[in-house]
Amino acid sequence: MDFKELKRFFETHDDYLILTHRNPDGDTVGSGFALWNVLRGMGKRAKVVNNEPFPSRYDFLYEGYEDSEFSPRTIVAVDVADKKLLGDTLSEYEDKVELCIDHHVSNKGYAKQTIVDGNASSATLVLYRFIRDQGIPLTDIIAKCIYTGLATDTGCFKYSNTTPEAHIAAAELMAYDIDFVNVNRRMFDIKSIGRMTVESAVTNEMEHYFGGKCTMICVTKALIDQTGVDIAEFDGLASIPLQVEGAVIGITLREHRDKAGFKLSVRTTDPVDASAFCRQFGGGGHIRAAGCEIDGTLEEVKAKVLEAVREMLGE
Amino acid sequence: MDFKELKRFFETHDDYLILTHRNPDGDTVGSGFALWNVLRGMGKRAKVVNNEPFPSRYDFLYEGYEDSEFSPRTIVAVDVADKKLLGDTLSEYEDKVELCIDHHVSNKGYAKQTIVDGNASSATLVLYRFIRDQGIPLTDIIAKCIYTGLATDTGCFKYSNTTPEAHIAAAELMAYDIDFVNVNRRMFDIKSIGRMTVESAVTNEMEHYFGGKCTMICVTKALIDQTGVDIAEFDGLASIPLQVEGAVIGITLREHRDKAGFKLSVRTTDPVDASAFCRQFGGGGHIRAAGCEIDGTLEEVKAKVLEAVREMLGE
Repeated sequence: MDFKELKRFFETHDDYLILTHRNPDGDTVGSGFALWNVLRGMGKRAKVVNNEPFPSRYDFLYEGYEDSEFSPRTIVAVDVADKKLLGDTLSEYEDKVELCIDHHVSNKGYAKQTIVDGNASSATLVLYRFIRDQGIPLTDIIAKCIYTGLATDTGCFKYSNTTPEAHIAAAELMAYDIDFVNVNRRMFDIKSIGRMTVESAVTNEMEHYFGGKCTMICVTKALIDQTGVDIAEFDGLASIPLQVEGAVIGITLREHRDKAGFKLSVRTTDPVDASAFCRQFGGGGHIRAAGCEIDGTLEEVKAKVLEAVREMLGE
Repeated sequence: MDFKELKRFFETHDDYLILTHRNPDGDTVGSGFALWNVLRGMGKRAKVVNNEPFPSRYDFLYEGYEDSEFSPRTIVAVDVADKKLLGDTLSEYEDKVELCIDHHVSNKGYAKQTIVDGNASSATLVLYRFIRDQGIPLTDIIAKCIYTGLATDTGCFKYSNTTPEAHIAAAELMAYDIDFVNVNRRMFDIKSIGRMTVESAVTNEMEHYFGGKCTMICVTKALIDQTGVDIAEFDGLASIPLQVEGAVIGITLREHRDKAGFKLSVRTTDPVDASAFCRQFGGGGHIRAAGCEIDGTLEEVKAKVLEAVREMLGE
């Protein structure tokens, strides 16, 4: 399906339900509301939904959004690589998705028609190409939605998926009232008190091995209980150990809630292969980010892990 | 002085000493080594100096750099807004700077000739314009130096000084071997163990007032001694209190080392005026970032500050 066909699709369909993925991020929310605005501009009825209510940190993306009551006739998913990512609330639509607009090469092709480009830094960038290509009017709010997805998925132009196209799009979008300073503050700087407490707690307990080449944090049930912070705030800590100067392998051990043993998240820098490291324990992943599970007490797991690190580093 | 005259300047002068500012950042170091490479390409001798040895985190910018012995005849400063920023080691050159290339509107004009553009996001961007305008060969290392300055001074394209030109330059520079992922990791993600300890300690002690609208950290002599971390690691903490969700005024109190009383750094978001807040205590600054000093014990200073916050927030 090319962009001309996509425009034709929008022209010939009505009453859209736009699905976004669970645990929403700036790209799925930005894509959802960008598309809502595009469809509204074409005189269509649409609504944007998620597994849960959208977190308030994204409220600047639904400026001008009006929720209306109608029976959806066209189901579209944005930035949703797999129908399982829709979540329980939206699972009734899993097999009814007419169109999916995405940028994950891993897209499962669950929709009847899919527009996916793995070279696009964000799903909003795919929408932006469509808007430019087909001469769709670009408004301030659409520009802000597109920028937000782009900034979110590239870590504000920091990650390896940042392309020259991403920078050029950002330059073009700055001609609109996108208030990118505020967008980036909301996406990257602001943290809940709970999250700050968690980060501080794990940093306090960080362990350093092999002259600082290996750093480790241990998120035990005891630590979680001790902080008194909601468990959701303990997600996404895996990048912290590798922030330490000199570290080449950063390991996060997280104790299972419901069974014995630990989940490991491993992050590395050149030349350490995180995937090879985790394969020893039956896990896997990418060269710089991988994971596995290990049974045992904290002491046993640590001993196994450190022995494997010692071998890998040739210490 | 326009770019044509600048090129003529370089052609007609020899044996350059390139001065960078003390407490060097990615922009002054990037500008220094970019210019060194440009001058070498023109067959000139040059060296790049700083008040102190360059920190090792910038070593990727001096790939291929050779320090040679010669008597400098042409003194050039890059990204140095004020001769006082050269530091003690370089103070002998304060009144001998022939040329300054900078992007600070506040540049004092201490050099015989100055090229300054306050609209450039970084000093390296001024150099980039010159390189493009005059058809100077752009190499991988020059591109990497320019990108580093640009990323550093814009907070990786996050701060309000980010311009469309900055994004377009980044897109163009990505055609070279700049390894921007590694550059940004070094500039933004990596922290010393000491710094992590300090951030964790101040976050642990963070105080929340007025329903979370005001957050405060107190860097006392006792806290500094207790952490056992080098005092330099306690700089630049002022942005932390405002990272808390819901905070509109973030205050950092820092106890003076050598006298009684505290230095305040105040950061705000819309609509709180940090400058107006600090003027009450004889200080000043910008609308979103300001400072002042207050005498008294920690308890006395806190009481004064919180009373002023109460009034400002209308609580």
